[in-house]
Amino acid sequence: MSASLDDLPLRPDLRGLKPYGAPQAPLPVALNVNENTHPVPEDVADDIVDAIARAVREVNRYPDREFTVLREGFADYLGHGLAADQIWAANGSNEVLQHLLQAFGGPGRTAFGFAPTYSMYPLLTRATGAEYIAGTRGVDYTLDADDARRQIEQADPDLVFLCAPNNPTGTPLGLDVIEAVYEATDGIVIVDEAYQEFAPHDSRSALTLLPGRERLVVSRTMSKAFAFAGARVGYLAADPAVIDALHLVRLPYHLSGLTQAAAIAALRHAPAMLATVDEIVAQRDRISVTLDALGYEPFESWTNFVLFAGVDDPAATWQALYDQGVLIRDVGLPRSLRVTAGTEAESTAFLDALASLGPGGAHT
Amino acid sequence: MSASLDDLPLRPDLRGLKPYGAPQAPLPVALNVNENTHPVPEDVADDIVDAIARAVREVNRYPDREFTVLREGFADYLGHGLAADQIWAANGSNEVLQHLLQAFGGPGRTAFGFAPTYSMYPLLTRATGAEYIAGTRGVDYTLDADDARRQIEQADPDLVFLCAPNNPTGTPLGLDVIEAVYEATDGIVIVDEAYQEFAPHDSRSALTLLPGRERLVVSRTMSKAFAFAGARVGYLAADPAVIDALHLVRLPYHLSGLTQAAAIAALRHAPAMLATVDEIVAQRDRISVTLDALGYEPFESWTNFVLFAGVDDPAATWQALYDQGVLIRDVGLPRSLRVTAGTEAESTAFLDALASLGPGGAHT
Repeated sequence: MSASLDDLPLRPDLRGLKPYGAPQAPLPVALNVNENTHPVPEDVADDIVDAIARAVREVNRYPDREFTVLREGFADYLGHGLAADQIWAANGSNEVLQHLLQAFGGPGRTAFGFAPTYSMYPLLTRATGAEYIAGTRGVDYTLDADDARRQIEQADPDLVFLCAPNNPTGTPLGLDVIEAVYEATDGIVIVDEAYQEFAPHDSRSALTLLPGRERLVVSRTMSKAFAFAGARVGYLAADPAVIDALHLVRLPYHLSGLTQAAAIAALRHAPAMLATVDEIVAQRDRISVTLDALGYEPFESWTNFVLFAGVDDPAATWQALYDQGVLIRDVGLPRSLRVTAGTEAESTAFLDALASLGPGGAHT
Repeated sequence: MSASLDDLPLRPDLRGLKPYGAPQAPLPVALNVNENTHPVPEDVADDIVDAIARAVREVNRYPDREFTVLREGFADYLGHGLAADQIWAANGSNEVLQHLLQAFGGPGRTAFGFAPTYSMYPLLTRATGAEYIAGTRGVDYTLDADDARRQIEQADPDLVFLCAPNNPTGTPLGLDVIEAVYEATDGIVIVDEAYQEFAPHDSRSALTLLPGRERLVVSRTMSKAFAFAGARVGYLAADPAVIDALHLVRLPYHLSGLTQAAAIAALRHAPAMLATVDEIVAQRDRISVTLDALGYEPFESWTNFVLFAGVDDPAATWQALYDQGVLIRDVGLPRSLRVTAGTEAESTAFLDALASLGPGGAHT
């Protein structure tokens, strides 16, 4: 006889919670978690494996705790005059955000996000003991500088999350909003650029705002454009003092030698790894145009996914697509669903399956 | 001009802290952090690399969040009738312990360890918001059941750490102590068996105590006997209800696809990976005998390291060995130093260097 959770001295605030996580299902067309559905190119994969093979030969030793070479790789990749002492990395951008919350959040402090936004922000905030405050967005989930400033001044949070472009809506964020939020708070401002590589080539990253703003942090991930979700590598750029703070809260040797080797090798092939981005952007725009033609209301997206409204019954439509072997995401927004832009074939499979359901999608 | 940490809104309890971590130095003989100094055997390394190569081909997708195959591998390796739903794993045993503290510790709760013990226990406890209580040990750092029971009844902690055998002292722990501590508390009892593979072959693991004890947890690591420190893999066995609790606090996809592939492959070669253990144990015992002959006082060790007293000036002796290319550890215990048992050549290098310093070691 196994015990139940009620038999254990679980923390009171965890009682009754369910584990977080999108459904994982082995469907032929999986467009639910904004992965890059293109595998790593064969020659790049070979070079990554060679690098890992060398790391395995010394895996009996603890890894470089400072992941020095990897930090240099990220600084080179990001450009903007960044140096290795302005870079941090961890096992996925969720752990990067967790480190920020451990250093600057925690009990008695608050973190703020403009809802709807990345669903992990409130979970990470509460798991590290701080209180989460959900702000609001305007028409079509956009955010303007005056509105953002007012909300931040009123809430006076210790940390602000700005997802740019925003997940799960795809919405771009103007740099003027980031500047306004930064001026309105004495707290840490985190610009989460997980999807930045899918933005128009002439759009400016929040990295351009870093000089002179020691409380500004720009986080990134290798999970999306870099097709590296399985390797779990997130990173950030900020003032070196922020990096000093993160040293106080990370676990020693938090990045494995295999992870470091894999990411260093992948960064050496950045152009090849990013070659799929233009193709994905083309599919994203094709999905938006086609959804519009089918009578849905796609929102503007600078990411590798499209949120679309005009779905009469999101749960029924999600299930009908699932039954046709197509997995997308019900993110809980009214009359809406979210789909990742896949390969041309995957995107076609999704659009055909959706079209087959008729106007407004499936109905129960 | 970079900012300083004082310019940032760091959490008040982190102010003035220094980052944790043993000195990392590229010395010829590194016996300071209890690694297995034998590299992974060549044929095993090849198989691990093949497994990782397959994982790289699907690294664009998120990994199996439930690490199902890896959990089955650990259950098989541990034996004792354990099933996969009793297994948890994370990026090093520190993260395993962090998950336990997040689920069962946190603000308003306390965790207890018998000092001197693993130096990360208080750091992990405080980083997750709980208070740490340091108990005491008897002569030669041993712990008996009556003393342990009395200390636990008096402190009434929410979690107890029992490092068995104990780091940094090497001291074995009787199962009767674990039973007594379990009966004396309503909290979670964590037996940290990081070094269990180096104990005598006929010694019993705390795994034998799991049936009927839903608050008992036995943690392990691949960093020591498995020569896998660089891969960062820790794990534990417990009642399935404990695993349910840990699901509530882990980050989604916390174990990378590469980590899972590497660990699964290594476990398939468990006998080969563990073949070095007997050799290390022989060097450990040789180190103890030789230290005794040199006039030092080695403590009984069931681990891959030896703590020895009788050092007149630990800091001077540590530096003198460092200057001869031998890195060991000053763990802050009076008149003592700690050395990892290395290969025969490394152990000889340490013993020769120490002998060259004369009776009682170096003096300033």
